[in-house]
Amino acid sequence: MHAVVIPHFGEAEVLRLDSVRDPEPLPREVLVKVHASGVNRADLLQRRGLYPPPPGVSEVPGLEFAGVVEEVGTDVTRWKPGDRVMGIVAGGGYAERVVVDERVAVGVPPGMDLTVAGAIPEVYMTAFDAVFRQAGLTAGEALLVHAVGSGVGTAAVQLARRAGARTIGTSRTPAKLERAAAMGLDVGLNGGEAWVEGVVEATGGRGADVILDLVGGPYLEKNQAAVAVGGRHVVVGVPGGSRAEIDLRALMARRARLFGTVLRARGVVEKAALAKEFGAEVVPGFVDGLLVPVIDRIFPVTEAVDAHLRMEANENFGKIVLVWGAAVQLGRCTGTNTLMREVARWTSG
Amino acid sequence: MHAVVIPHFGEAEVLRLDSVRDPEPLPREVLVKVHASGVNRADLLQRRGLYPPPPGVSEVPGLEFAGVVEEVGTDVTRWKPGDRVMGIVAGGGYAERVVVDERVAVGVPPGMDLTVAGAIPEVYMTAFDAVFRQAGLTAGEALLVHAVGSGVGTAAVQLARRAGARTIGTSRTPAKLERAAAMGLDVGLNGGEAWVEGVVEATGGRGADVILDLVGGPYLEKNQAAVAVGGRHVVVGVPGGSRAEIDLRALMARRARLFGTVLRARGVVEKAALAKEFGAEVVPGFVDGLLVPVIDRIFPVTEAVDAHLRMEANENFGKIVLVWGAAVQLGRCTGTNTLMREVARWTSG
Repeated sequence: MHAVVIPHFGEAEVLRLDSVRDPEPLPREVLVKVHASGVNRADLLQRRGLYPPPPGVSEVPGLEFAGVVEEVGTDVTRWKPGDRVMGIVAGGGYAERVVVDERVAVGVPPGMDLTVAGAIPEVYMTAFDAVFRQAGLTAGEALLVHAVGSGVGTAAVQLARRAGARTIGTSRTPAKLERAAAMGLDVGLNGGEAWVEGVVEATGGRGADVILDLVGGPYLEKNQAAVAVGGRHVVVGVPGGSRAEIDLRALMARRARLFGTVLRARGVVEKAALAKEFGAEVVPGFVDGLLVPVIDRIFPVTEAVDAHLRMEANENFGKIVLVWGAAVQLGRCTGTNTLMREVARWTSG
Repeated sequence: MHAVVIPHFGEAEVLRLDSVRDPEPLPREVLVKVHASGVNRADLLQRRGLYPPPPGVSEVPGLEFAGVVEEVGTDVTRWKPGDRVMGIVAGGGYAERVVVDERVAVGVPPGMDLTVAGAIPEVYMTAFDAVFRQAGLTAGEALLVHAVGSGVGTAAVQLARRAGARTIGTSRTPAKLERAAAMGLDVGLNGGEAWVEGVVEATGGRGADVILDLVGGPYLEKNQAAVAVGGRHVVVGVPGGSRAEIDLRALMARRARLFGTVLRARGVVEKAALAKEFGAEVVPGFVDGLLVPVIDRIFPVTEAVDAHLRMEANENFGKIVLVWGAAVQLGRCTGTNTLMREVARWTSG
């Protein structure tokens, strides 16, 4: 099968479309023909050699997929060939086929486009798990989201609004704040300015009950000042930097909680529990229209380089999605990047 | 009534025994004649002006008490005069009488000495709340306790053993580690040496599932290295210092959680919930003998200065308790500190 691979660590241009061995499903796994895979910041880190896949996991990047079940393992009871599924994987998402434990796959609702579905699992599961399952956001509370224009950020705002919480978001890009406001963000604050006061004001002096942090170190001191008594601060990404000074006495005084979280490294049982709750509590929101995946751009996999460059330049608002399909099969490539030239060579060879 | 007061902030010697107005119970409060009050590090901070009582709370230090109900508010249904109770208060414990919401008081089991009871509420409630209610320690997990010779530390070790968890403790004082071992601590490590390796070894490479931290900043980096995947690190005191560098990426990679907590600032409803669970789940342990309060020294209130000096010098293993009684009533004072001279003057005046 075809897959986007990382032949050596480096800039976006190292990505290559290559031929790799098809994965084979274990007894409880399903083999999925992938239609779409979301791009995540973690993929950029992995490409640079900074975020290796867990032991035993495919070296092919890609943490999520949506597609159609092609084959099932001997013990699979939940799915059959032809079923439309989406889900998270610890690696291998940028490929034509993935294998996933049947319990970790989530059904794609009838009528939902598989390209849209490819934009869902990683960001909505991350936001749902961090903000609700871990931080326990409830109706009437205030959620502060840093990097609100990111895929996880937009997903979190939608989930919080749906749950009856107030939403406050920061971004260093005014245009992203405008788009977030149009999407329903209650209060947008410029991350490059003094935003703590804005959070305090927007919460009647209480501070944020939950902080979803996609920035990291540079905001830690401010987050400690912006969190409410009893507040929960969940760190899901540290593109701004990992290290910062923390004031433990302030943490005590506010009875605040600081969580670090990742989905990728979790075991099957934990991922299965998340997938089950996600299917029951979140997926209906896509059907009734309260949740609308925000898709920034859709690239054919042949343009994975451009997809990475766009995310690296922080130009996206919402998800960037890679799709398999005509481009690869027919060799029709547009654009000028290395990968596309490579693909052209590969498909014509 | 009599109370130990802080006429101005400073060293232990500022403490004075003085005459203050009797507290009056609100409709849901009980008035308790205090027999004993534990001394806590927070009292030392308050005496130095570093930890003021919450608004509306007595300026008299003291966060816990055990005694006998003397009078009940008009709406009280749970207690009657003569009942023996103990509990936490946000201030006022170093006095002959305290008032407390009836829901926050906990019954002292028949047969338990009230002096012993005075050593229980703050440390056992803190340890129970932090290690079990917040951090969720379960049987088979490993608890790491820093400053294991402290009142909260010894209480935590007993509670963890009773729950079937493995206990690891650090102290910079070898004699305290010996005493902790005699009390049942599984693994004692010198806090002044490289203890991370000891934690890793004692847990088969996994790390500590729960860390109860009574040290703070200086241990943060090591705690991040010693915590297990999915581990919970609860900070209940920072005598070693409040500020330290945290590695947020490491927090994410271990999916670790860092909690700050205090009991004092909580509202009545939260304290009532804690007291209820404490009465049901912990108090029976004092009756069946699995929990044995570790009392370092008992001082008459007239020697509150000595009590503070002993804790400040870090000489205690377990709780220091102040008791009311003969010494005050009869003016019989021993020792040479300022407070005692003051008391002698006051009782003879």
